[in-house]
Amino acid sequence: MIIIKLGGSVITDKKRENRARKKVIDRLVQEIKRSKKKIILVHGAGSFGHIHAKEYKLDRGFKSSDQLKGFHITHSSVRILNQIVMNSLYNHGMFSVSLPPISFVEMSNRKLKYIDLRCFEESISIGLTPVTFGDVVFDDKLGFSICSGDVLVLNLSRYFKPEKVILVIDEDGIFDKDPKRCKDAKLLREIKYDDLPTAEKSLYTDVTGGMGGKIEVIREIAKEDIDVLVVNGNKRDRLFGSLIGKREKGTHVIGG
Amino acid sequence: MIIIKLGGSVITDKKRENRARKKVIDRLVQEIKRSKKKIILVHGAGSFGHIHAKEYKLDRGFKSSDQLKGFHITHSSVRILNQIVMNSLYNHGMFSVSLPPISFVEMSNRKLKYIDLRCFEESISIGLTPVTFGDVVFDDKLGFSICSGDVLVLNLSRYFKPEKVILVIDEDGIFDKDPKRCKDAKLLREIKYDDLPTAEKSLYTDVTGGMGGKIEVIREIAKEDIDVLVVNGNKRDRLFGSLIGKREKGTHVIGG
Repeated sequence: MIIIKLGGSVITDKKRENRARKKVIDRLVQEIKRSKKKIILVHGAGSFGHIHAKEYKLDRGFKSSDQLKGFHITHSSVRILNQIVMNSLYNHGMFSVSLPPISFVEMSNRKLKYIDLRCFEESISIGLTPVTFGDVVFDDKLGFSICSGDVLVLNLSRYFKPEKVILVIDEDGIFDKDPKRCKDAKLLREIKYDDLPTAEKSLYTDVTGGMGGKIEVIREIAKEDIDVLVVNGNKRDRLFGSLIGKREKGTHVIGG
Repeated sequence: MIIIKLGGSVITDKKRENRARKKVIDRLVQEIKRSKKKIILVHGAGSFGHIHAKEYKLDRGFKSSDQLKGFHITHSSVRILNQIVMNSLYNHGMFSVSLPPISFVEMSNRKLKYIDLRCFEESISIGLTPVTFGDVVFDDKLGFSICSGDVLVLNLSRYFKPEKVILVIDEDGIFDKDPKRCKDAKLLREIKYDDLPTAEKSLYTDVTGGMGGKIEVIREIAKEDIDVLVVNGNKRDRLFGSLIGKREKGTHVIGG
Protein backbone atom coordinates (compact mmCIF):
# COMPACT_ATOMS: atom_id res chain seq x y z
CA MET A 1 0.00 0.00 0.00
CA ILE A 2 1.18 3.51 -0.85
CA ILE A 3 0.29 6.76 0.91
CA ILE A 4 -0.18 9.72 -1.44
CA LYS A 5 -0.48 13.34 -0.42
CA LEU A 6 -1.87 15.73 -3.02
CA GLY A 7 -0.63 19.17 -2.02
CA GLY A 8 -3.10 22.02 -1.70
CA SER A 9 -1.04 24.14 -4.10
CA VAL A 10 -1.39 21.50 -6.82
CA ILE A 11 -5.12 20.79 -6.52
CA THR A 12 -6.24 24.39 -5.90
CA ASP A 13 -5.37 27.81 -7.16
CA LYS A 14 -3.75 29.09 -3.98
CA LYS A 15 -4.33 32.73 -4.81
CA ARG A 16 -8.04 32.45 -5.49
CA GLU A 17 -10.52 31.53 -2.80
CA ASN A 18 -12.24 28.17 -3.25
CA ARG A 19 -10.92 27.54 -6.76
CA ALA A 20 -10.20 23.86 -7.39
CA ARG A 21 -7.99 22.80 -10.30
CA LYS A 22 -10.44 20.13 -11.41
CA LYS A 23 -8.53 19.07 -14.54
CA VAL A 24 -5.36 18.54 -12.52
CA ILE A 25 -7.32 16.57 -9.90
CA ASP A 26 -8.87 14.39 -12.62
CA ARG A 27 -5.48 13.75 -14.24
CA LEU A 28 -3.82 12.83 -10.93
CA VAL A 29 -6.71 10.53 -9.99
CA GLN A 30 -6.50 8.91 -13.41
CA GLU A 31 -2.74 8.34 -12.87
CA ILE A 32 -3.50 6.69 -9.52
CA LYS A 33 -6.22 4.51 -11.03
CA ARG A 34 -3.97 3.46 -13.92
CA SER A 35 -1.22 2.32 -11.49
CA LYS A 36 -3.64 -0.22 -9.94
CA LYS A 37 -1.98 0.36 -6.55
CA LYS A 38 -3.82 0.25 -3.23
CA ILE A 39 -3.53 3.65 -1.66
CA ILE A 40 -4.49 5.92 1.18
CA LEU A 41 -5.12 9.43 -0.12
CA VAL A 42 -4.45 12.61 1.85
CA HIS A 43 -5.00 16.03 0.37
CA GLY A 44 -4.24 19.58 1.39
CA ALA A 45 -6.80 22.34 1.84
CA GLY A 46 -5.17 24.95 -0.40
CA SER A 47 -7.22 28.08 -0.95
CA PHE A 48 -10.34 26.31 0.40
CA GLY A 49 -8.93 26.29 3.89
CA HIS A 50 -5.94 28.58 4.25
CA ILE A 51 -7.60 31.87 3.30
CA HIS A 52 -10.43 31.54 5.85
CA ALA A 53 -8.19 29.97 8.51
CA LYS A 54 -5.85 32.95 8.19
CA GLU A 55 -8.63 35.55 8.17
CA TYR A 56 -10.09 34.18 11.41
CA LYS A 57 -6.67 33.38 12.96
CA LEU A 58 -7.71 29.78 13.59
CA ASP A 59 -4.08 28.70 14.01
CA ARG A 60 -3.92 30.74 17.22
CA GLY A 61 -6.71 28.66 18.76
CA PHE A 62 -10.02 29.76 20.20
CA LYS A 63 -9.78 33.33 21.47
CA SER A 64 -13.20 34.80 20.70
CA SER A 65 -16.62 33.68 19.53
CA ASP A 66 -16.13 35.61 16.26
CA GLN A 67 -13.86 32.74 15.25
CA LEU A 68 -16.73 30.21 15.35
CA LYS A 69 -17.92 31.66 12.04
CA GLY A 70 -14.40 31.11 10.70
CA PHE A 71 -14.37 27.55 12.02
CA HIS A 72 -17.68 26.77 10.29
CA ILE A 73 -16.71 28.34 6.99
CA THR A 74 -13.20 26.82 6.91
CA HIS A 75 -14.46 23.33 7.66
CA SER A 76 -17.31 23.73 5.20
CA SER A 77 -15.01 24.99 2.41
CA VAL A 78 -12.53 22.16 2.90
CA ARG A 79 -15.43 19.71 2.68
CA ILE A 80 -16.39 21.21 -0.70
CA LEU A 81 -12.84 20.60 -1.97
CA ASN A 82 -12.94 17.09 -0.51
CA GLN A 83 -16.23 16.46 -2.31
CA ILE A 84 -14.60 17.47 -5.61
CA VAL A 85 -11.77 14.99 -4.97
CA MET A 86 -14.28 12.28 -3.94
CA ASN A 87 -16.34 12.86 -7.09
CA SER A 88 -13.25 12.56 -9.25
CA LEU A 89 -12.34 9.25 -7.55
CA TYR A 90 -15.91 8.01 -8.08
CA ASN A 91 -15.87 9.00 -11.74
CA HIS A 92 -12.69 6.95 -12.18
CA GLY A 93 -14.22 3.91 -10.47
CA MET A 94 -12.24 4.37 -7.25
CA PHE A 95 -14.88 3.89 -4.56
CA SER A 96 -13.77 5.72 -1.48
CA VAL A 97 -14.70 6.96 1.94
CA SER A 98 -14.06 10.43 3.26
CA LEU A 99 -12.65 10.49 6.80
CA PRO A 100 -12.46 14.06 8.14
CA PRO A 101 -9.75 14.44 10.79
CA ILE A 102 -12.07 16.29 13.18
CA SER A 103 -13.54 13.04 14.42
CA PHE A 104 -10.40 10.90 14.72
CA VAL A 105 -7.69 13.43 15.67
CA GLU A 106 -7.24 15.51 18.79
CA MET A 107 -4.46 18.03 19.18
CA SER A 108 -2.93 19.49 22.31
CA ASN A 109 -1.31 22.89 21.92
CA ARG A 110 -0.94 22.31 18.14
CA LYS A 111 0.73 18.89 18.61
CA LEU A 112 -1.06 15.66 17.83
CA LYS A 113 -2.33 14.19 21.09
CA TYR A 114 -4.51 11.35 19.87
CA ILE A 115 -5.30 9.68 16.56
CA ASP A 116 -7.65 6.72 15.97
CA LEU A 117 -7.00 5.04 12.62
CA ARG A 118 -9.43 2.13 12.93
CA CYS A 119 -11.76 3.55 10.27
CA PHE A 120 -8.83 3.52 7.81
CA GLU A 121 -8.20 -0.15 8.57
CA GLU A 122 -11.86 -0.96 8.11
CA SER A 123 -12.04 0.92 4.80
CA ILE A 124 -9.02 -0.91 3.45
CA SER A 125 -10.27 -4.30 4.63
CA ILE A 126 -13.40 -4.07 2.47
CA GLY A 127 -11.65 -2.46 -0.52
CA LEU A 128 -12.62 1.20 -0.13
CA THR A 129 -9.94 3.86 -0.60
CA PRO A 130 -9.70 6.00 2.55
CA VAL A 131 -9.40 9.74 1.94
CA THR A 132 -8.51 12.38 4.51
CA PHE A 133 -7.37 16.00 4.43
CA GLY A 134 -5.83 18.86 6.34
CA ASP A 135 -8.48 20.73 8.32
CA VAL A 136 -9.36 22.44 11.58
CA VAL A 137 -9.66 20.02 14.52
CA PHE A 138 -10.23 20.19 18.27
CA ASP A 139 -7.32 20.98 20.59
CA ASP A 140 -7.58 20.27 24.32
CA LYS A 141 -5.47 23.33 25.21
CA LEU A 142 -6.47 25.83 22.50
CA GLY A 143 -10.08 24.80 21.74
CA PHE A 144 -9.14 24.12 18.15
CA SER A 145 -6.09 24.20 15.91
CA ILE A 146 -5.03 23.10 12.44
CA CYS A 147 -4.09 19.51 11.59
CA SER A 148 -2.12 19.60 8.35
CA GLY A 149 -2.24 16.93 5.69
CA ASP A 150 1.50 16.39 6.29
CA VAL A 151 0.90 15.49 9.96
CA LEU A 152 -1.76 13.02 8.83
CA VAL A 153 0.66 11.47 6.31
CA LEU A 154 3.30 11.06 9.02
CA ASN A 155 0.94 9.34 11.45
CA LEU A 156 -0.65 7.14 8.79
CA SER A 157 2.88 6.12 7.71
CA ARG A 158 3.91 5.18 11.23
CA TYR A 159 0.78 3.08 11.63
CA PHE A 160 0.46 1.41 8.24
CA LYS A 161 4.15 1.14 7.22
CA PRO A 162 3.36 1.74 3.53
CA GLU A 163 5.58 0.51 0.68
CA LYS A 164 6.40 4.20 0.11
CA VAL A 165 5.01 7.71 0.51
CA ILE A 166 4.55 10.06 -2.44
CA LEU A 167 4.20 13.78 -1.84
CA VAL A 168 2.79 15.57 -4.87
CA ILE A 169 3.78 19.23 -4.83
CA ASP A 170 4.00 22.17 -7.27
CA GLU A 171 7.81 22.00 -7.66
CA ASP A 172 10.06 19.34 -9.18
CA GLY A 173 11.11 18.20 -5.70
CA ILE A 174 13.30 19.48 -2.86
CA PHE A 175 16.05 21.92 -3.85
CA ASP A 176 19.16 23.01 -1.99
CA LYS A 177 17.91 26.62 -2.20
CA ASP A 178 14.55 28.22 -2.94
CA PRO A 179 14.03 27.54 -6.68
CA LYS A 180 11.53 30.41 -6.89
CA ARG A 181 14.24 32.90 -5.82
CA CYS A 182 17.56 31.34 -6.82
CA LYS A 183 18.35 30.48 -10.43
CA ASP A 184 21.22 28.21 -9.40
CA ALA A 185 19.08 26.12 -7.03
CA LYS A 186 19.84 22.43 -7.54
CA LEU A 187 17.29 19.66 -7.31
CA LEU A 188 18.24 17.03 -4.74
CA ARG A 189 17.62 13.86 -6.80
CA GLU A 190 18.47 11.24 -4.20
CA ILE A 191 19.25 11.92 -0.59
CA LYS A 192 19.47 10.03 2.69
CA TYR A 193 17.00 11.41 5.21
CA ASP A 194 19.71 12.57 7.58
CA ASP A 195 21.30 14.64 4.79
CA LEU A 196 18.11 16.65 4.24
CA PRO A 197 18.58 20.37 4.92
CA THR A 198 17.27 21.47 8.30
CA ALA A 199 14.95 24.39 8.77
CA GLU A 200 17.68 26.25 10.68
CA LYS A 201 20.40 25.71 8.06
CA SER A 202 18.52 26.52 4.92
CA LEU A 203 17.26 29.90 3.81
CA TYR A 204 14.98 28.02 1.40
CA THR A 205 13.08 26.24 4.11
CA ASP A 206 12.56 29.48 5.99
CA VAL A 207 11.06 31.57 3.24
CA THR A 208 8.71 29.18 1.47
CA GLY A 209 6.28 28.70 4.28
CA GLY A 210 5.32 25.06 4.10
CA MET A 211 8.66 23.60 3.00
CA GLY A 212 10.39 23.82 6.39
CA GLY A 213 7.71 21.81 8.16
CA LYS A 214 7.38 19.49 5.19
CA ILE A 215 11.07 18.54 5.34
CA GLU A 216 10.78 17.74 9.05
CA VAL A 217 7.82 15.48 8.29
CA ILE A 218 9.72 13.74 5.46
CA ARG A 219 12.65 13.15 7.80
CA GLU A 220 10.34 11.61 10.40
CA ILE A 221 8.69 9.31 7.82
CA ALA A 222 12.01 8.22 6.33
CA LYS A 223 13.34 7.49 9.83
CA GLU A 224 10.69 4.75 9.94
CA ASP A 225 12.55 3.05 7.06
CA ILE A 226 10.01 4.27 4.48
CA ASP A 227 11.10 5.88 1.20
CA VAL A 228 9.55 9.25 0.40
CA LEU A 229 9.22 10.50 -3.17
CA VAL A 230 8.56 14.18 -3.77
CA VAL A 231 7.27 14.84 -7.29
CA ASN A 232 5.75 17.62 -9.34
CA GLY A 233 2.01 17.14 -9.77
CA ASN A 234 1.84 19.68 -12.58
CA LYS A 235 3.93 17.41 -14.81
CA ARG A 236 2.03 14.61 -16.48
CA ASP A 237 2.79 11.04 -15.41
CA ARG A 238 5.32 11.80 -12.68
CA LEU A 239 2.87 10.54 -10.07
CA PHE A 240 2.02 7.52 -12.22
CA GLY A 241 5.69 6.67 -12.81
CA SER A 242 6.49 7.07 -9.11
CA LEU A 243 3.60 4.77 -8.20
CA ILE A 244 4.74 1.94 -10.48
CA GLY A 245 8.41 2.28 -9.48
CA LYS A 246 9.81 4.20 -12.47
CA ARG A 247 12.57 6.66 -11.66
CA GLU A 248 10.87 10.02 -12.35
CA LYS A 249 12.38 13.47 -12.00
CA GLY A 250 11.89 14.42 -8.35
CA THR A 251 13.47 13.93 -4.94
CA HIS A 252 13.89 10.41 -3.66
CA VAL A 253 14.45 10.44 0.09
CA ILE A 254 15.91 7.10 1.12
CA GLY A 255 14.46 5.78 4.34
CA GLY A 256 16.26 3.66 6.90
CA MET B 1 -29.27 21.36 26.17
CA ILE B 2 -31.85 19.83 23.83
CA ILE B 3 -31.30 17.09 21.26
CA ILE B 4 -33.30 17.57 18.05
CA LYS B 5 -33.75 15.00 15.32
CA LEU B 6 -34.99 16.30 11.97
CA GLY B 7 -36.55 13.31 10.23
CA GLY B 8 -35.53 12.43 6.69
CA SER B 9 -39.15 12.52 5.55
CA VAL B 10 -39.48 16.14 6.70
CA ILE B 11 -36.28 17.56 5.24
CA THR B 12 -36.32 15.62 1.95
CA ASP B 13 -38.88 14.52 -0.58
CA LYS B 14 -38.74 10.81 0.18
CA LYS B 15 -40.04 9.78 -3.23
CA ARG B 16 -37.55 11.74 -5.26
CA GLU B 17 -33.84 10.97 -5.21
CA ASN B 18 -31.64 13.66 -3.68
CA ARG B 19 -34.40 16.26 -3.37
CA ALA B 20 -34.00 18.42 -0.26
CA ARG B 21 -36.92 20.47 1.05
CA LYS B 22 -34.78 23.57 1.48
CA LYS B 23 -37.58 25.91 2.54
CA VAL B 24 -38.66 23.49 5.28
CA ILE B 25 -35.03 23.13 6.42
CA ASP B 26 -34.64 26.92 6.54
CA ARG B 27 -37.88 27.35 8.51
CA LEU B 28 -36.95 24.66 11.04
CA VAL B 29 -33.45 26.11 11.48
CA GLN B 30 -34.97 29.56 11.94
CA GLU B 31 -37.28 28.14 14.65
CA ILE B 32 -34.26 26.61 16.41
CA LYS B 33 -32.31 29.86 16.19
CA ARG B 34 -35.26 31.86 17.50
CA SER B 35 -35.58 29.61 20.58
CA LYS B 36 -32.01 30.56 21.64
CA LYS B 37 -31.57 27.02 23.03
CA LYS B 38 -28.30 25.10 22.98
CA ILE B 39 -28.81 22.03 20.88
CA ILE B 40 -27.27 18.96 19.31
CA LEU B 41 -28.74 18.39 15.86
CA VAL B 42 -29.25 14.98 14.27
CA HIS B 43 -30.85 14.56 10.87
CA GLY B 44 -32.08 11.68 8.79
CA ALA B 45 -30.86 10.79 5.31
CA GLY B 46 -34.25 10.64 3.59
CA SER B 47 -34.10 10.16 -0.16
CA PHE B 48 -30.39 11.08 -0.16
CA GLY B 49 -29.49 7.87 1.60
CA HIS B 50 -32.34 5.37 1.54
CA ILE B 51 -32.75 5.00 -2.21
CA HIS B 52 -29.08 4.16 -2.84
CA ALA B 53 -28.74 2.09 0.34
CA LYS B 54 -31.72 0.01 -0.79
CA GLU B 55 -30.52 -0.34 -4.37
CA TYR B 56 -27.14 -1.68 -3.25
CA LYS B 57 -28.57 -3.66 -0.29
CA LEU B 58 -26.19 -1.93 2.11
CA ASP B 59 -28.33 -2.98 5.12
CA ARG B 60 -27.35 -6.60 4.47
CA GLY B 61 -23.66 -5.80 4.95
CA PHE B 62 -20.73 -6.32 2.61
CA LYS B 63 -21.46 -9.22 0.28
CA SER B 64 -19.82 -8.20 -2.99
CA SER B 65 -17.51 -5.53 -4.33
CA ASP B 66 -20.35 -4.11 -6.45
CA GLN B 67 -21.65 -2.63 -3.21
CA LEU B 68 -18.56 -0.43 -2.81
CA LYS B 69 -20.01 1.85 -5.49
CA GLY B 70 -23.23 1.95 -3.44
CA PHE B 71 -21.26 2.75 -0.29
CA HIS B 72 -19.47 5.65 -1.98
CA ILE B 73 -22.60 7.09 -3.57
CA THR B 74 -24.75 6.72 -0.42
CA HIS B 75 -22.18 8.37 1.80
CA SER B 76 -21.56 11.08 -0.77
CA SER B 77 -25.29 11.82 -1.21
CA VAL B 78 -25.89 12.04 2.53
CA ARG B 79 -22.99 14.47 2.77
CA ILE B 80 -24.68 16.67 0.15
CA LEU B 81 -27.85 16.78 2.29
CA ASN B 82 -25.74 17.45 5.36
CA GLN B 83 -24.04 20.34 3.53
CA ILE B 84 -27.49 21.84 2.78
CA VAL B 85 -28.38 21.64 6.48
CA MET B 86 -24.98 23.08 7.47
CA ASN B 87 -25.39 25.97 5.02
CA SER B 88 -28.82 26.76 6.42
CA LEU B 89 -27.40 26.80 9.97
CA TYR B 90 -24.59 29.09 8.81
CA ASN B 91 -27.03 31.44 7.07
CA HIS B 92 -28.95 31.74 10.35
CA GLY B 93 -25.78 32.49 12.33
CA MET B 94 -25.62 29.05 13.95
CA PHE B 95 -21.97 28.10 13.55
CA SER B 96 -21.72 24.36 13.56
CA VAL B 97 -19.52 21.36 12.99
CA SER B 98 -20.47 18.32 10.96
CA LEU B 99 -19.57 15.02 12.67
CA PRO B 100 -20.21 12.07 10.34
CA PRO B 101 -20.89 8.84 12.27
CA ILE B 102 -18.46 6.83 10.14
CA SER B 103 -15.54 8.04 12.21
CA PHE B 104 -16.99 7.83 15.73
CA VAL B 105 -19.37 4.84 15.51
CA GLU B 106 -18.68 1.17 14.96
CA MET B 107 -21.45 -1.41 14.63
CA SER B 108 -21.34 -5.15 15.19
CA ASN B 109 -23.98 -7.14 13.32
CA ARG B 110 -26.17 -4.02 12.99
CA LYS B 111 -25.97 -3.20 16.72
CA LEU B 112 -23.94 -0.31 18.05
CA LYS B 113 -20.63 -1.65 19.36
CA TYR B 114 -18.69 1.52 20.05
CA ILE B 115 -19.36 5.26 20.02
CA ASP B 116 -16.92 8.04 20.86
CA LEU B 117 -18.69 11.31 21.65
CA ARG B 118 -15.69 13.39 22.66
CA CYS B 119 -15.91 15.55 19.54
CA PHE B 120 -19.47 16.50 20.54
CA GLU B 121 -18.25 17.57 23.98
CA GLU B 122 -15.47 19.61 22.43
CA SER B 123 -17.85 21.29 19.97
CA ILE B 124 -20.24 22.28 22.74
CA SER B 125 -17.46 23.51 25.02
CA ILE B 126 -16.39 26.18 22.52
CA GLY B 127 -19.94 27.10 21.44
CA LEU B 128 -20.26 25.24 18.12
CA THR B 129 -23.46 23.30 17.40
CA PRO B 130 -22.63 19.64 16.71
CA VAL B 131 -24.48 18.10 13.77
CA THR B 132 -24.61 14.42 12.89
CA PHE B 133 -26.80 12.23 10.68
CA GLY B 134 -27.87 8.72 9.79
CA ASP B 135 -25.40 7.12 7.38
CA VAL B 136 -23.53 3.98 6.41
CA VAL B 137 -20.81 3.04 8.94
CA PHE B 138 -18.34 0.19 9.49
CA ASP B 139 -19.52 -3.03 11.11
CA ASP B 140 -17.00 -5.52 12.52
CA LYS B 141 -19.15 -8.50 11.54
CA LEU B 142 -20.77 -7.30 8.29
CA GLY B 143 -18.13 -4.96 6.87
CA PHE B 144 -20.61 -2.11 6.95
CA SER B 145 -24.18 -1.45 8.02
CA ILE B 146 -26.53 1.48 8.56
CA CYS B 147 -26.46 3.67 11.66
CA SER B 148 -29.80 5.49 11.84
CA GLY B 149 -30.28 8.98 13.15
CA ASP B 150 -32.55 7.51 15.84
CA VAL B 151 -29.75 5.29 17.19
CA LEU B 152 -27.52 8.38 17.32
CA VAL B 153 -30.21 10.31 19.22
CA LEU B 154 -30.53 7.48 21.75
CA ASN B 155 -26.81 7.27 22.42
CA LEU B 156 -26.34 11.03 22.54
CA SER B 157 -29.23 11.18 25.04
CA ARG B 158 -27.71 8.55 27.30
CA TYR B 159 -24.41 10.40 27.29
CA PHE B 160 -25.48 14.04 27.51
CA LYS B 161 -28.75 13.69 29.52
CA PRO B 162 -30.43 16.56 27.63
CA GLU B 163 -33.25 18.64 29.07
CA LYS B 164 -35.49 16.92 26.48
CA VAL B 165 -35.42 15.29 23.06
CA ILE B 166 -37.54 16.55 20.16
CA LEU B 167 -38.23 14.27 17.21
CA VAL B 168 -39.48 16.21 14.21
CA ILE B 169 -41.48 13.95 11.88
CA ASP B 170 -44.03 14.28 9.07
CA GLU B 171 -47.06 13.35 11.23
CA ASP B 172 -48.67 15.13 14.18
CA GLY B 173 -47.12 12.62 16.58
CA ILE B 174 -47.61 8.99 17.58
CA PHE B 175 -51.09 7.54 16.95
CA ASP B 176 -52.77 4.44 18.33
CA LYS B 177 -53.17 3.16 14.76
CA ASP B 178 -51.62 4.07 11.44
CA PRO B 179 -53.09 7.53 10.67
CA LYS B 180 -52.31 7.08 6.97
CA ARG B 181 -54.61 4.05 6.80
CA CYS B 182 -57.16 4.45 9.63
CA LYS B 183 -59.47 7.46 9.78
CA ASP B 184 -60.26 6.83 13.45
CA ALA B 185 -56.60 6.80 14.50
CA LYS B 186 -56.17 8.83 17.70
CA LEU B 187 -53.16 10.99 18.48
CA LEU B 188 -51.51 9.99 21.76
CA ARG B 189 -51.12 13.45 23.36
CA GLU B 190 -49.38 12.49 26.58
CA ILE B 191 -48.19 9.05 27.46
CA LYS B 192 -45.86 7.37 29.93
CA TYR B 193 -43.07 5.56 28.15
CA ASP B 194 -44.19 2.15 29.40
CA ASP B 195 -47.66 2.71 27.93
CA LEU B 196 -46.26 3.20 24.41
CA PRO B 197 -47.53 0.58 21.94
CA THR B 198 -45.02 -2.18 21.29
CA ALA B 199 -43.98 -3.26 17.82
CA GLU B 200 -45.65 -6.65 18.39
CA LYS B 201 -48.98 -5.28 19.62
CA SER B 202 -49.58 -2.57 17.11
CA LEU B 203 -50.37 -3.00 13.42
CA TYR B 204 -49.39 0.66 12.98
CA THR B 205 -45.83 0.07 14.05
CA ASP B 206 -45.53 -2.89 11.70
CA VAL B 207 -46.64 -1.24 8.49
CA THR B 208 -45.01 2.17 8.58
CA GLY B 209 -41.46 1.02 8.37
CA GLY B 210 -39.62 3.42 10.61
CA MET B 211 -42.25 3.88 13.34
CA GLY B 212 -41.75 0.51 15.06
CA GLY B 213 -38.04 1.06 15.59
CA LYS B 214 -38.65 4.71 16.42
CA ILE B 215 -41.02 3.81 19.28
CA GLU B 216 -38.43 1.41 20.71
CA VAL B 217 -35.85 4.21 20.63
CA ILE B 218 -38.27 6.65 22.29
CA ARG B 219 -38.95 4.10 25.03
CA GLU B 220 -35.22 3.68 25.63
CA ILE B 221 -34.64 7.44 25.82
CA ALA B 222 -37.61 8.02 28.14
CA LYS B 223 -36.38 5.19 30.41
CA GLU B 224 -33.38 7.44 31.09
CA ASP B 225 -35.79 9.93 32.68
CA ILE B 226 -35.76 12.21 29.63
CA ASP B 227 -38.99 13.57 28.10
CA VAL B 228 -39.41 13.01 24.37
CA LEU B 229 -41.61 15.28 22.24
CA VAL B 230 -42.72 14.07 18.83
CA VAL B 231 -43.94 16.93 16.64
CA ASN B 232 -44.92 17.64 13.06
CA GLY B 233 -42.17 19.52 11.23
CA ASN B 234 -44.52 20.47 8.40
CA LYS B 235 -46.55 22.66 10.75
CA ARG B 236 -45.08 26.08 11.45
CA ASP B 237 -43.81 26.81 14.96
CA ARG B 238 -44.46 23.41 16.52
CA LEU B 239 -40.70 22.85 16.82
CA PHE B 240 -40.22 26.39 18.13
CA GLY B 241 -43.03 26.01 20.71
CA SER B 242 -41.69 22.64 21.82
CA LEU B 243 -38.23 24.11 22.24
CA ILE B 244 -39.37 26.96 24.49
CA GLY B 245 -41.67 24.73 26.56
CA LYS B 246 -45.07 25.59 25.04
CA ARG B 247 -47.56 22.74 24.87
CA GLU B 248 -47.82 22.14 21.10
CA LYS B 249 -49.95 19.55 19.33
CA GLY B 250 -47.88 16.37 19.27
CA THR B 251 -46.97 13.42 21.46
CA HIS B 252 -45.35 14.08 24.81
CA VAL B 253 -43.69 10.94 26.10
CA ILE B 254 -43.05 11.36 29.81
CA GLY B 255 -39.70 10.02 30.90
CA GLY B 256 -38.86 8.50 34.24
